[in-house]
Order: sequence, then structure tokens, then C-alpha cells
Amino acid sequence: MGIKKIKTGEQFKELVAKIQAKSGYKNPIGFGIARIDRGQLNSEKILQASYGVVNWNENFGSSAIFVEALAQSGVDVDFCGSEFVATVSKKFIKNSLKAFAPYIDEAVGEAHKNVQVIKELSSILQSTGNYDNFKVVFIFKDEALQSVEATYLKLYALSLSKAPLRGINLNGAFGVLPNVAWSGNVPIELDFLRENEIELKLNGEYPEISSVDKFPRFLQHVIPADNTRILDSSKVRMGAQIAGGTTVMPGASYINFNAGTLGPVMVEGRISSSAIVGSGSDVGGGASILGVLSGTDGNPISIGENTLLGANSVTGIPLGDGCIVDAGVSILEGTKITIPFAQIVKLQEINPNLPKKKDRLYKGLELANLNGIHFRADSKTGTVVAFRSQREVKLNKDLH
Amino acid sequence: MGIKKIKTGEQFKELVAKIQAKSGYKNPIGFGIARIDRGQLNSEKILQASYGVVNWNENFGSSAIFVEALAQSGVDVDFCGSEFVATVSKKFIKNSLKAFAPYIDEAVGEAHKNVQVIKELSSILQSTGNYDNFKVVFIFKDEALQSVEATYLKLYALSLSKAPLRGINLNGAFGVLPNVAWSGNVPIELDFLRENEIELKLNGEYPEISSVDKFPRFLQHVIPADNTRILDSSKVRMGAQIAGGTTVMPGASYINFNAGTLGPVMVEGRISSSAIVGSGSDVGGGASILGVLSGTDGNPISIGENTLLGANSVTGIPLGDGCIVDAGVSILEGTKITIPFAQIVKLQEINPNLPKKKDRLYKGLELANLNGIHFRADSKTGTVVAFRSQREVKLNKDLH
Amino acid sequence: MGIKKIKTGEQFKELVAKIQAKSGYKNPIGFGIARIDRGQLNSEKILQASYGVVNWNENFGSSAIFVEALAQSGVDVDFCGSEFVATVSKKFIKNSLKAFAPYIDEAVGEAHKNVQVIKELSSILQSTGNYDNFKVVFIFKDEALQSVEATYLKLYALSLSKAPLRGINLNGAFGVLPNVAWSGNVPIELDFLRENEIELKLNGEYPEISSVDKFPRFLQHVIPADNTRILDSSKVRMGAQIAGGTTVMPGASYINFNAGTLGPVMVEGRISSSAIVGSGSDVGGGASILGVLSGTDGNPISIGENTLLGANSVTGIPLGDGCIVDAGVSILEGTKITIPFAQIVKLQEINPNLPKKKDRLYKGLELANLNGIHFRADSKTGTVVAFRSQREVKLNKDLH
Repeated sequence: MGIKKIKTGEQFKELVAKIQAKSGYKNPIGFGIARIDRGQLNSEKILQASYGVVNWNENFGSSAIFVEALAQSGVDVDFCGSEFVATVSKKFIKNSLKAFAPYIDEAVGEAHKNVQVIKELSSILQSTGNYDNFKVVFIFKDEALQSVEATYLKLYALSLSKAPLRGINLNGAFGVLPNVAWSGNVPIELDFLRENEIELKLNGEYPEISSVDKFPRFLQHVIPADNTRILDSSKVRMGAQIAGGTTVMPGASYINFNAGTLGPVMVEGRISSSAIVGSGSDVGGGASILGVLSGTDGNPISIGENTLLGANSVTGIPLGDGCIVDAGVSILEGTKITIPFAQIVKLQEINPNLPKKKDRLYKGLELANLNGIHFRADSKTGTVVAFRSQREVKLNKDLH
Repeated sequence: MGIKKIKTGEQFKELVAKIQAKSGYKNPIGFGIARIDRGQLNSEKILQASYGVVNWNENFGSSAIFVEALAQSGVDVDFCGSEFVATVSKKFIKNSLKAFAPYIDEAVGEAHKNVQVIKELSSILQSTGNYDNFKVVFIFKDEALQSVEATYLKLYALSLSKAPLRGINLNGAFGVLPNVAWSGNVPIELDFLRENEIELKLNGEYPEISSVDKFPRFLQHVIPADNTRILDSSKVRMGAQIAGGTTVMPGASYINFNAGTLGPVMVEGRISSSAIVGSGSDVGGGASILGVLSGTDGNPISIGENTLLGANSVTGIPLGDGCIVDAGVSILEGTKITIPFAQIVKLQEINPNLPKKKDRLYKGLELANLNGIHFRADSKTGTVVAFRSQREVKLNKDLH
Repeated sequence: MGIKKIKTGEQFKELVAKIQAKSGYKNPIGFGIARIDRGQLNSEKILQASYGVVNWNENFGSSAIFVEALAQSGVDVDFCGSEFVATVSKKFIKNSLKAFAPYIDEAVGEAHKNVQVIKELSSILQSTGNYDNFKVVFIFKDEALQSVEATYLKLYALSLSKAPLRGINLNGAFGVLPNVAWSGNVPIELDFLRENEIELKLNGEYPEISSVDKFPRFLQHVIPADNTRILDSSKVRMGAQIAGGTTVMPGASYINFNAGTLGPVMVEGRISSSAIVGSGSDVGGGASILGVLSGTDGNPISIGENTLLGANSVTGIPLGDGCIVDAGVSILEGTKITIPFAQIVKLQEINPNLPKKKDRLYKGLELANLNGIHFRADSKTGTVVAFRSQREVKLNKDLH
């Protein structure tokens, strides 16, 4: 019989409550409906998933409806696995429309985004009849990834700032995502290019390839805030998080997935995977913040607020607020840094835990997360030294 | 009645003289006719202006005709403001064609570019009838920018080398230009993407976005010299100036607006806004020239001729001719540089104003604009030192 | 009369033997059939050549057939020059098809690629009749380049790993290749843009230009291995060689032509023209390997296996296996490096030719090609020092 046409918000709530009360039912961590791109040679191979709307710990009414609409179309959602993917069907759409009936008309603009998705799908499918490329996707447990669809759902959650950086499990992403040639937003199997190379080349129809990667670019899927600027789409990978007011310049910059900014940041350098930069900070031209895969021995790096990483500097330790790493200076975990006694005292004022050492020598890792440190190379002696920086540090704020 | 059809060059000159003699008339600093792109949602919002021809302190006959043709179409140009923008109209085109009549046939190739613009517009408008997207733009005073059209006119003037770098007032540009998503040469309102995200994504029609920025890229509007190479369009912002023979590599390079080169330069590093590099110089891979917004305390940096900035070096002071900054060395305003006495003497030969200091220690800023200095880090001691470089310095040429 | 239709593999071999036995006949070093792009204004100017298949010291049977099919169409291949280019003709195709007859049906997938080219050409030309844009290209001597077609053939040979890096003569390439604007895969004459600028701009049809260069990008012509990733097509020039398993990140990286990797390498920095990086090595973010044109005094740099170049380091000497250059450290030919005596002894164990020097001071060039060296800057003193690295070095393998 299917879902009966719902007439009021009250009825909708009752229906949702009824669905949620079923034995074994679980609210998903994330869910959404994706359009997928399939392999040109192997149509079973899913190359990409695009979401018009991503839900992350929210909109549990809609997920209940989707679960029930799937059940009515013969697909029982498995709540025990970490993720569940089902193909959209005519019955699924029909039942969803009936359940969402009270909201159909008002589902425009910012209102009832999931209902908008169903409306749009209904319209697309009426004309094409091709349901195979649309998937209902749920994540029930934050475990290692198993499908392309769930991987994109998590990448969206990060890039839309719905999930915190380093806050979700991305294990398995590299195994799940296929390596493809990207022609604009379209992923192409490398084997397809190989099999058709002669024909494509001789006909002048070989596609323009912008990259070959498992991940798409951030701007292929995400609309940044009005005051965010990304001057070259290749510089930010999907799965990065770019807070409003951030500017990413096109020189030597790069922001990897599961890395990014928490507020307005000027980015002219590299924010490696797992690195996070706080509001008001400045990653200078060519500056490198090392990632867990590139030199930090597994310790992910956070940079505080109002901190300045100079041009071509390298930072291999986490830094607090109001720090400066001078242009060209490298501060790694093992770098030995000399701090004059008077400066140790000044630094202790804002970093109570900083010990006083008689030899005045500190390893980089011993200065991790401290505030207001200015790292520089004494150009008369070559010694790497540290002082109290002149930048503002908000006190009473130990760590990030 | 409008302008009477002009028959000879003599008559044309008379007409121009008559227009220019009118009370309050003023020759513009710059003028041109632009095709504009409008917002997809808000068609009143102008996103970009494209000029086929830009006039900068030149072609005052054509500007007189444009002023008069506007007057004849009911639009009185206001000579008192800093800039003036009017929409093209049928009458404007008709009157311009009458005034330019003696030149219509010969307006091809390099001849009579403004006449070519009117001819082309006439042809376009006959078929489309849509005049709204074409604007006549004048700049009368070099003041803070007020319109998108005038901002683009100034950016063109810089990028076409018609106005000198740092020579015009760009205040207000960031306020005037809207932040947009660029899909190829087409600017798209971010709000348009937001409002249509679901539809675009589910239909597989989400546009390929190459950048999100207020400025377009240099190569979207400017045709470089035959011997200029720019290996990645994202690396040069509109408003930069790239002299013939310059090569911009795609590694860590970037040239911002109001910055650039004065002759053949190999650019593999960053030329920040306001920085200028002289002929024959080499900005090595990853080298950074700081800009007024990034570390130079408001002093814009010029680099002389035949100067070499080594890979991953950082330069925060202006340099003269024939200098070398070694790979990996940072020379900032406050860097203390040791110069051996014998080298001070040698440097004084080509830099008469360099004082002899007993402690042989110079701050970076004290060596600003000098010629023939070779900066290096003594790898035995770590001391930053300077010598007389081995590179050619053209004498009798104190500053740039 | 032309070639008689061949019926068996035996007959084919006989025909090839007969052609090869002719006086003056020579097997080519490389050959292939290219589709060319011509100038929009000057159609005699060839802007690009695209090969579906490139033969390099292989498939001499096919080249013999091509030579004979040309002869039968009235074109006598000149074996004395270094390269020979002929336009495809109806007779050439017809004769090639007759000679390849026994293989026509089985020429699919990986089999008989040159036959596939002839089949595809035959099909294209039947419908278009336009033979002028297809060229048969031979290289008989590895000498300075004379044609665009032969230049692309050599660039393909390098990028397809059919010819070794630094193994072929690329002199003349810069003179032969025209500088063009690239709109996707399509090269456009700069003069065409100039002549049509007004029309293109005012009609909103100015093409999207991704670069202006003599060389195309690697990904415009080459399909990388399944486990290779190139996150931004602008980062690898055509003529580079990218071994399977290599990842090229989009931050500050660049790989020029005649440079590249010999195995899986993580590339986040610059591999200049002529530089080669061995398997398992890591070119850190912003690291620069200098090229013969940028600071190495003509000595091309090889980096061994399992060697790590830290972020923003600069390497101006060849390195062996298992080396480390710390982040931010520059090692040039003239850099003076201090090695403690105990470390000299350890380094001699794997580098028997390393002399023991009493002053413990070595110039960079004296340490060229050695294995297992760890270069760092002592952050207490600023001295550049070297130690035995902790990375694995495969012994009994002196040089690369």
C-alpha cells in the first residue's frame, strides 16, 4: 500500500515517530541522496557522488521518511552496518512525496532542502526514467569507509563544516576511491582513455584533463562563503574545510583533505592533511605546515589564532596564539631553540607551564602549543632563537 | 538632429575641436567601451567588464566623439566626477558612425581601433537589439574607484602597460568588485549557485569552477607578447604587468595585480602586489618578494636589472642591479648583515652612498636599493654576509 | 600498381624483408602518424602534433610498410636526413591497408596499434576527405630538431618512458615550437587573438586560455599509470617522465620536460629540466632540485632512491640513495659542509671513495652522488653539517 498521503505537520510527526519507534531503527550520523558518475567502460564502477544536500546529525525526520519509503519499495535498510547505500526507485520517490506532502509547496530556498531534493528527483525521473544513477546513502557508524557514496558524504560533511576537522574516520578512503582522470567535473576511467586513445587523438577529441586523482577538488562540490576566496581550484582538495573570510592564493599554497582553517586566514602556503589553522592567522608565501604523513611523527599540527608563518618557513610543531615564525625559518620537533633568560620569563607570563631551563635550550616539541613565541634565526650567528612575540595573545586560553 | 555625417578627416578634426572647446569639457585619462557580465540572479549587479580596446591618455578625438554621441542620445557626460559610465544606445552608435564615417572602411587591423569597436557593436546590436550590456566608460580623475567598469579599465591600463605599475589609484577596487565564482571566463554569483545547487547537482550540470575571486586572471583579458610565456593562467592576476620576454613558470610562482616585470624576467617565485622586477632579473623557484601587504611595512619593493633571487629566498627590501640573494636566504628589513671590510670598499665603488661601519654590521634596510650585492649565509658559521657580487652592474645608474 | 594485398603473416614478413633490403633503407629510431593542429591565421604554421601511437626503436615492420606505402603514393622517404615528415594520402592509406590486411581484424585493444591507426585514419578520411592534417613522421638520427612533428615525437618518447631521460637530443625544440595560447587542448596563435580581439571580446566569445607556452602539458597527451596521481595538469610539462606510483601534489611542485621520476616518488617540489629522481624518494613541499639552466653550472642532478628532500630545501648537487636534506636547508655546489670525524668514518663505510679531510670541511660538490648523507643546519650554531642518515641504503650500488 505504501505511505498514505500526509496532510499536516502533525501527521508527519506522528509518522516519523512511528518509524523511529520500530525495533532496530537508528538515526543516521549522516545521510543524503547522491547523483553518481559511473565508469565509461565498467558501469558497475562508481567514480563520484554529488550531493545537493548533506545531512549530518540533523534532519532525522527526513531520514526516517527515506528509510520507510525504501521499505515500501522493498529495500530494508540495514542499521547494523556502518553505511548503507540503496538505489532510488519510482516507489521510493512516490512514497517520499506522499510523506512530504505538507511541505512540498513551501520547499524552496532555504526551507526543507531534503524535500526539494525529492521534488527535483521526481521531475528528473519523470523525464528520463533512469533511476540507476541516484542513491540514498546513510552512515550509521563512523567506521572505515566502504563505498564511494559514503566517502563523498563524509568529505562533504567536512567541507561543509558540518563535521569537525579530524573529527571523523576517513580510513579506507584511498582504497575505496578510484583513481580517475578529471575532465572538468567529469571523472573518466584511465582505461577508457587507453582503449580509445587512438580514436580520440586522431579525431581531435581527446578530452582536456585537469588532474588525475582519487579526490575531486573542493570547488567541484562546495560553494564557499561570500567572503572566501580561492584563486585556483586545484589548490584545495575536496574534504578540506575553509572557514568564511579565508583567502587561498595561487602561488605555493595547498590545502589537503581533513585540513583547513577555522576563521579568516590568509593562505599562501601549505596546510597538509590533518593540519588546522586558527582565525586571524597568516600562512605566508611558501610556508609549510607539515602533516601527519610528512614529517610530524604522527602528531597533527594545530596553529592558533593570530599567528604568522613567514614566507618559506616550515612548521613541524603545533603553535598557540600570536606566534611568529620568521621568513625562511624551520621549526621541527627536534630543532634546538635558544631562549634568552629574560624572554623565558616573558613567555612564562602567558605560558605558565613553560619550564625554566638553565641551558636556555629547548627542543621544538617542548615549545609545542605555546602562545606568543617569535621564532627567528639570529642572522649574526645563525642560531635559532625564540622571543616573546609582539603579536596579541588572548590570555586565559591555554590550548586550541 | 544628431551629428551630421562627416566626410573628410578635415571635417572630423573640426568636429572634435568644436566638442573639445565646449565649456567644462575635459579629456579623459582613460576611456573605452566594455561588454559587461551581469549577475544571474541580480541583473543590476555587474560582475565583469571586457574591453576590446582601452585608451589611456590617448585618442582624445575618439573620446570627444563618444561624449558628443552620448549627448545626442540624451546622456550628458559629467566631467566633474572621477569616472562616468553610460549605457550604449542606438542613437549613440548611429551618431558615432556618422562622426567616424571617413574612417569606417580603413578601420581594420591596427588602424582606428575605436572605430572598429563601433562597427562591431553596430553589427552585434543590429542582430540582438540588446544594448544594456555595453557601456561607454570614462575616467576623468585618478581617484578611488567607484564602478566595476572603471576598475576594469584601470586594470587593463596596467596589464596592457599603458599605465605604470604603482602609477594609478586602485583604492576601492576590493570594495567595488564582487566576489564571484569563475567558470572559465564567465563570472557566476555565489548566490546563484546556492539557489540552484540541488537542481544543478542532481542534473549533473553544476559548472566547472576554476576560482572564486574578485579579480579575473590576466589571460582572461590580455594577450601577452609573442615572446612571453605564462605556463598557468592562475599564476597571474588581472592588473599585473608582464613585460615581453617574461616567462612565468607554474611551480611556486605568482604575480599579483599592480605588480610585475619591466623586461624579460624568469619568474619561478612570487611577486607580491606592488613589487616590480627589472629586466634580465631572475626570480628563482619559490623565491618570495614581499608586498606592501605582506611584511614590508608599507615600502613597495623594486628589484633592479640583472638581479638573481635564488630558489626559496625571501626578499623584503628593494634591491638594485646585479644583486644575488642565495638560495634559501631571507633578507628582511631588520636582518643584520655582516660585510667584510674589503667588500665594503668594493661595494662603495658602485654604491657611493654606502657608509663604512666599524662593526661591519648593516641592517637590511640600510642596504636597500644598492647595486651588486651578493647576500649569502656562511654555511660554516650561519652568519648572513654580503659581498660584491660577480654579476654585471651598469654604473651611473643609482636607483630604479 | 601499389602493394599487393597481403594474405598471410608469412607474406607480410617477406614484404617487410624486401623493403628493408632496399639500398639506403634504414630503420627509424622513432616513427608514428600524427594529427596536427594548424594556425588559425597561418595554416602553414603547425602548432601541435598528437600521436595515438608512438614507436621508439620498435615495430620496424610497420615502419617499413609506411615507407613503402609512401613510395607507392609518390613520396620517397629521405633516409639521410635526421627526420622526415610526409602528408598522409589516399594512396598511402590504401597501400598500408593492403599490407596490413592479415592483421586488420585482430587489430584491437593492445594488438597491432599501428594497424589500428591506419584503420581509424581510413575511417576518418572516408568521411572527411581531409588528409592535410595527418602526417607520417620518421626520426632517423637523434640530432637537433627541425619540425614540430618530430619534436612532439621525441617528447612523447620521453613521456611514455620509451626513451630515457637525458637520453635524446632535444636541441632546437624551443626554436621549432611556436609560442601559442592553449585553450584546453587547442593551441591558438597569439596573432589570431590579436586580430580578432574586438570581435571576440564584444561578443563574449573570447576563449578561455589556460596557458601561453611552446610546450603543451603532459596530461594533454599522456595517460599516466593507474597508480600515478597528478593533482594539477599545469604541474607537469609534456616531455617529463612520470614513473608509475608517482604522486605530484599541486602546491609548489613542478616537473619540467626531460626531467622526472624513475619509480614511485612523492613530488611536492620542483624537478627542474634535466633532473631525475629515483624510486622511493620524496621531494618535500617547496623543495627545489636545480636544473642545468638554473644554478648547477651544467651538471644535471640525479637523486637516488629512498632519499628525502625536506620542505623548502634546495638541492644543487646530485645525491645518492638514502640521503636526507632537512627542511629549509640549501646544499649547493659551493656550500661548505662540516662533517664530524665519527660521521666521516660511518659515511666511508657506504661511500668508500669519500676522503677523510682534517678540517672536516667538504664542499657540496665533493659530496655529490654519495649515499646515506643527512644534511642539516645545526640550529644552535647555524653551521651546515652532515651525518650518516638513518635511512636505508642499498649497498653495492655506487652510483645511479
